Amino acid sequence: MKNLSIKWESSKAEAVIKQLNFSKMNGLITAIAQDWKTNEILMCAFANHEAILKSLTTGIVHYFSRSQNKLWQKGETSGHIQEIKEVYIDCDGDVVLFKVDQKIAACHTGYRSCFYQKVANDGSLRIIGKKCFNPSDVY
Amino acid sequence: MKNLSIKWESSKAEAVIKQLNFSKMNGLITAIAQDWKTNEILMCAFANHEAILKSLTTGIVHYFSRSQNKLWQKGETSGHIQEIKEVYIDCDGDVVLFKVDQKIAACHTGYRSCFYQKVANDGSLRIIGKKCFNPSDVY
Repeated sequence: MKNLSIKWESSKAEAVIKQLNFSKMNGLITAIAQDWKTNEILMCAFANHEAILKSLTTGIVHYFSRSQNKLWQKGETSGHIQEIKEVYIDCDGDVVLFKVDQKIAACHTGYRSCFYQKVANDGSLRIIGKKCFNPSDVY
Repeated sequence: MKNLSIKWESSKAEAVIKQLNFSKMNGLITAIAQDWKTNEILMCAFANHEAILKSLTTGIVHYFSRSQNKLWQKGETSGHIQEIKEVYIDCDGDVVLFKVDQKIAACHTGYRSCFYQKVANDGSLRIIGKKCFNPSDVY
């Protein structure tokens, strides 16, 4: 059986979106992607109404790119999409948590997770992440 | 042996902060707290330079409250502090991930995690979180 993502009809997605509060950050909320099996945090970015609607109705995570000022399907260039398995909303409705099946890797640098740098005991930053691809092969 | 948090000298904390980018959100970055043992995401809020400095030098997570426009030590009223065990920085330096030992619960509503609402298959929001305290007893 294919490992499918979960998605919702538009009307149901809009009912979910009604519970969100986009007013605190000029139409944006925070969106976190977490590996649905390991609970590793993969990335953290922003989403607007359209990005959440697209995510919920397609089952594939979409964000809003502030630098490019546009809707952005994670993996649209690389193919490294995030299939939605579960969706959670925080207490005040300004953060959405997607538990996802991440294809290949989340980070554009080639690491599985964007959080591949750890602050070591001596205060230096250590690379602790797993490199999954070479960015120059993909982008 | 007491289960201590990890902390850094000011000069080392400032060196870490130099790697962060506060410019994209008017002096703020996103801060995520994750349970260091289970990897459950506990909360997601914002931090400024001072909040990160305080977090790294005290070993206790501090945030910046946008609604109150001030530095805020998580647990300062409730005692439900977050002891820092590990610190990670994302690829573009605008998100900090704290792996923490959460005392009692992270959410002011009494749930262990702020992400206690799950979008069910029918599109409704279901409470799935674990209630750890009664807010009226604490605040």
